[in-house]
Amino acid sequence: MTRMAQQKRIGILGATGSIGRQTLEVIAARDEFEACALAAGCRWELLAEQARRFGTEAVAIADDSAAEALAAAVPDGTRVFAGPDAMTDLVRATRPDVLVTGVVGAAGLKPALAGIECGCTLAVANKEPLVMAGAIVMPAARAAGVEVLPVDSEHSGIFQCLKAGRRADVRRVTITASGGALRDWDAERAHGATVDEALDHPTWDMGRKITIDSATLVNKALEVVEAHWLFDLAPEQIEVVIHPESIAHSLVEFADGSVIAQLAQPDMTTPIAYALSHPARLPRAGAGLDLAERGRLTFRPLQGRFARAVALGYEAIRRGGAAGAVLNSANEAAVEAFLAGGIAFGDIVPVVEQVLNLAEPISEVTLDALLSADAWARARVAEITRAATKASPA
Amino acid sequence: MTRMAQQKRIGILGATGSIGRQTLEVIAARDEFEACALAAGCRWELLAEQARRFGTEAVAIADDSAAEALAAAVPDGTRVFAGPDAMTDLVRATRPDVLVTGVVGAAGLKPALAGIECGCTLAVANKEPLVMAGAIVMPAARAAGVEVLPVDSEHSGIFQCLKAGRRADVRRVTITASGGALRDWDAERAHGATVDEALDHPTWDMGRKITIDSATLVNKALEVVEAHWLFDLAPEQIEVVIHPESIAHSLVEFADGSVIAQLAQPDMTTPIAYALSHPARLPRAGAGLDLAERGRLTFRPLQGRFARAVALGYEAIRRGGAAGAVLNSANEAAVEAFLAGGIAFGDIVPVVEQVLNLAEPISEVTLDALLSADAWARARVAEITRAATKASPA
Repeated sequence: MTRMAQQKRIGILGATGSIGRQTLEVIAARDEFEACALAAGCRWELLAEQARRFGTEAVAIADDSAAEALAAAVPDGTRVFAGPDAMTDLVRATRPDVLVTGVVGAAGLKPALAGIECGCTLAVANKEPLVMAGAIVMPAARAAGVEVLPVDSEHSGIFQCLKAGRRADVRRVTITASGGALRDWDAERAHGATVDEALDHPTWDMGRKITIDSATLVNKALEVVEAHWLFDLAPEQIEVVIHPESIAHSLVEFADGSVIAQLAQPDMTTPIAYALSHPARLPRAGAGLDLAERGRLTFRPLQGRFARAVALGYEAIRRGGAAGAVLNSANEAAVEAFLAGGIAFGDIVPVVEQVLNLAEPISEVTLDALLSADAWARARVAEITRAATKASPA
Repeated sequence: MTRMAQQKRIGILGATGSIGRQTLEVIAARDEFEACALAAGCRWELLAEQARRFGTEAVAIADDSAAEALAAAVPDGTRVFAGPDAMTDLVRATRPDVLVTGVVGAAGLKPALAGIECGCTLAVANKEPLVMAGAIVMPAARAAGVEVLPVDSEHSGIFQCLKAGRRADVRRVTITASGGALRDWDAERAHGATVDEALDHPTWDMGRKITIDSATLVNKALEVVEAHWLFDLAPEQIEVVIHPESIAHSLVEFADGSVIAQLAQPDMTTPIAYALSHPARLPRAGAGLDLAERGRLTFRPLQGRFARAVALGYEAIRRGGAAGAVLNSANEAAVEAFLAGGIAFGDIVPVVEQVLNLAEPISEVTLDALLSADAWARARVAEITRAATKASPA
């Protein structure tokens, strides 16, 4: 692929995941973009295929043992980085214009910060840079003068709606929640939902972990924390409502009572493309919305187990320090435990809540302190779920 | 009232009408604004009361015979203009920062153009400056470098939504229609609706003429023409859908499939306040929107008599010249005939359609040509309705 003068150089951390593959779809459809850097965890074969298809300058793989196979599979001249610092090295070596962060877990933090140092626009598609480390990432981005663009559909929507007014005139934002696969289940039935049931999302096609977060609504707790950091909003300025159709992604209410909403078909490629092309928008066929055909949009308040899940986000903001990291990591570990059959679906939120309540305040927010909190939270979830498994009559 | 350094000077053409009175409510609630100039048609007592309350510099009354009584009733030092050119004289004498045009009929055109000449921001609350004379007003405003701000809730919404993207990336706009008082009536029953039935609007509290326009949906034909002029949109870029709740006022779809919508409680003071305060927004208590409490927003396509009414707007754009003036004036006359008992509710749209089809193209769009077209259209409606009355068995 020849590079055009106007091409934006895109780096993707997590190229083989759901967001990464969709980002590459967007890049493949347009001449404006070049996929200059791709990083994956362990799926070296898919990564090599992507590197061949997109003429990528450099690739990174976290799994050291796959480095040799990857190097043999990519075109001559492609630089290959491997090991725990591979993503950071990749970012520094390629300095993309836009760095899409789509790696789940704390592993994506250092490379995201490296992206900020290199002046990359950060297109944040994973939770960690903001939920865990918003207190580090946002000041770093401001200091470096780089933009942090959300890829989450809800935050992309808020970002767009905010343009309709002045920041000082924002009264509150509303994030919508589909309610996930178990939206209409009563609490008792939902408690015992199987993995397949919880993964059967009605409107969004996403990765497994995120789909479970949609069913617990912990995704909205995380999004509340993200909105707090991205848009400098107080907890009481962030509202979550259930909106089963997933068409209105978010709304911004201004001081005069006027509400600006962003709507789109539930398709992650729309916010991905916007983050890549911003401030322009790329023409995309067939992505239109026919409200008259759709007929209705419905909204209902958060209640019961859903309100309990989202409250974790407000609590994490209120606590500050490493609470966001604890929330994120405890939830990740609890979802893994559920997917592995270690705990019931209905135990995910109580386990996360318990770990969040156990966490001690930290004296200073540093990357090391956040990584320690991450490890601490995972260990606590492991203890709790082991105890639960032992106590189980099975 | 003492004038503050930062106060915006507001002039209101049509101060005693529905829009004028609501504009004065907005002004009364805030220190930012001063009502420097007020004009009315014939209601001199209310106008004098407004002038006393707001310490207005100058007033204008179209009805010459009321001039003396008005002059006696306003505070000493208030300038009084009377007669057919009174509004234009008022604008030139006071040169407001923002001129709110809320006068029904062609009489508001010359003073609006005078406002542009004087460098006033035009807050357009009546149909005539754009529907009749968009081809004159918009180029004049561009040449004078003055802003034309819509006060209609739908166009105010579009104006706000457009800020979320670049003009080149706009794919289409959608204007919503409540459907008016007779929304769910079948065609036959609607044809014979009484004045009281047609005035019983479900969501908006407005003047009589506009409420009838809401029931026929000719208001949306006029709004399509306004959107064409205000935002430089082709007819095929403007869509109208029925939205009974009147909460989502308009939507803008961008090229990437992302839709930005403006929502608010149906209350004209919200778009009025925005036109006065733009680009700032004024804090207004109690104007918020609780979507979860509201529960649902519904949308349906235009069909039958509603589609026929809105088609008049597309046709007027397509014809150009004086067709907008003919549409506006024929409709005004037909609504007057209906309110006076001269024709049936169901005859309004067919009469307007007939007159629009009879109109000859004009060679050049001048104010005189538009005023001639206005008079011509009213005369045609009078002929048709006289003939209909004579032919009637009653």
